[in-house]
Amino acid sequence: MWQQKTISITSKGRGTYDITGEIEKIIVNNKKRKIHTGLCHVFVRHTSASLILCENADSQVRMDLEHFMAKLTPDGNPLFSHTMEGPDDMPAHIRSILTSNDLSIPITAGQLMLGTWQGVYLWEHRLRSHHRQIVVTIQGQ
Amino acid sequence: MWQQKTISITSKGRGTYDITGEIEKIIVNNKKRKIHTGLCHVFVRHTSASLILCENADSQVRMDLEHFMAKLTPDGNPLFSHTMEGPDDMPAHIRSILTSNDLSIPITAGQLMLGTWQGVYLWEHRLRSHHRQIVVTIQGQ
Amino acid sequence: MWQQKTISITSKGRGTYDITGEIEKIIVNNKKRKIHTGLCHVFVRHTSASLILCENADSQVRMDLEHFMAKLTPDGNPLFSHTMEGPDDMPAHIRSILTSNDLSIPITAGQLMLGTWQGVYLWEHRLRSHHRQIVVTIQGQ
Repeated sequence: MWQQKTISITSKGRGTYDITGEIEKIIVNNKKRKIHTGLCHVFVRHTSASLILCENADSQVRMDLEHFMAKLTPDGNPLFSHTMEGPDDMPAHIRSILTSNDLSIPITAGQLMLGTWQGVYLWEHRLRSHHRQIVVTIQGQ
Repeated sequence: MWQQKTISITSKGRGTYDITGEIEKIIVNNKKRKIHTGLCHVFVRHTSASLILCENADSQVRMDLEHFMAKLTPDGNPLFSHTMEGPDDMPAHIRSILTSNDLSIPITAGQLMLGTWQGVYLWEHRLRSHHRQIVVTIQGQ
Repeated sequence: MWQQKTISITSKGRGTYDITGEIEKIIVNNKKRKIHTGLCHVFVRHTSASLILCENADSQVRMDLEHFMAKLTPDGNPLFSHTMEGPDDMPAHIRSILTSNDLSIPITAGQLMLGTWQGVYLWEHRLRSHHRQIVVTIQGQ
């Protein structure tokens, strides 16, 4: 049994956006269609935004993550030649590649098997607002 | 055909733990149930431990990996505000996000299609011992 | 419905190799076998090569990526003890682990659901030419 849905998110620029609820809604709505055991695949169709599983209790974790990435791959780094769209262009690609464009989460007893402290976040790496498409594919029996 | 099993591992603190054998056992036991071609998904339900596919011959590789991460994101870095659980708290989240919480490996002819030098490792990023849950989902035909 | 195919690539040493077309060919050939909605899993069977989804328009992006990695984990770093196969040995393992050995892409209406600017690349991290095996597994209904 398969189901696929695209979530559209308009980011307000660089930062993390909790999409756990959006994904859980798809699983719950599917319950009637009876996926008991399976997998939920999440995919972002962009190269300057990514997906992370991150601690969901203290929002400071995601701010520290930003600080870490800003030091690891600073905007305006003279190392880069690909700067057409601005100083955050190439760092955004690197941040995406160092994290991930896709992840899969087990479905057990019709529920997403996330750990207690795991949330699913879209990470927008560009400074300005962008429209982002996320494809959620669930399958199972 | 689907099968799901949770492996529990008690880490002895920071370091890598070979779980290849545990996963292969699930595949082999499943053989009777006849998954010939498919995928094996492995998922860690935590935000301060992760999964890696790593060279399995020379254990020095995993020690060098530790040294690399210790320099990239040192414990006690004054950059971080999320320090409630100690100086290794935020670095553990970053290490997890830079590696991965989930991975999938092909199943071919009823066998895990790992390369000769690929082992599956749980990477504990906290200094102290922790109980870690790993959900293994196999599917195929 | 499942299909699995191994792609063999002989790299010309360190650099990125576009494999999007090779993967799309498998999906298209499969169309006759009617996977409408599903997933395409790509897996590299090595620990010193990896897979990335990267911007596919400006090749400078991938050159900047190389420059970034060369600074993050330089060849010949005296930090490393695992140097048996040369100064690029351990950096190659680290680059692989910081990126990924596997990724999954949604299949929608019999097509790979990549974003407009997303290409799939094999990233060879060793300096010399290597034979690399990539297992592509597609499934769906």
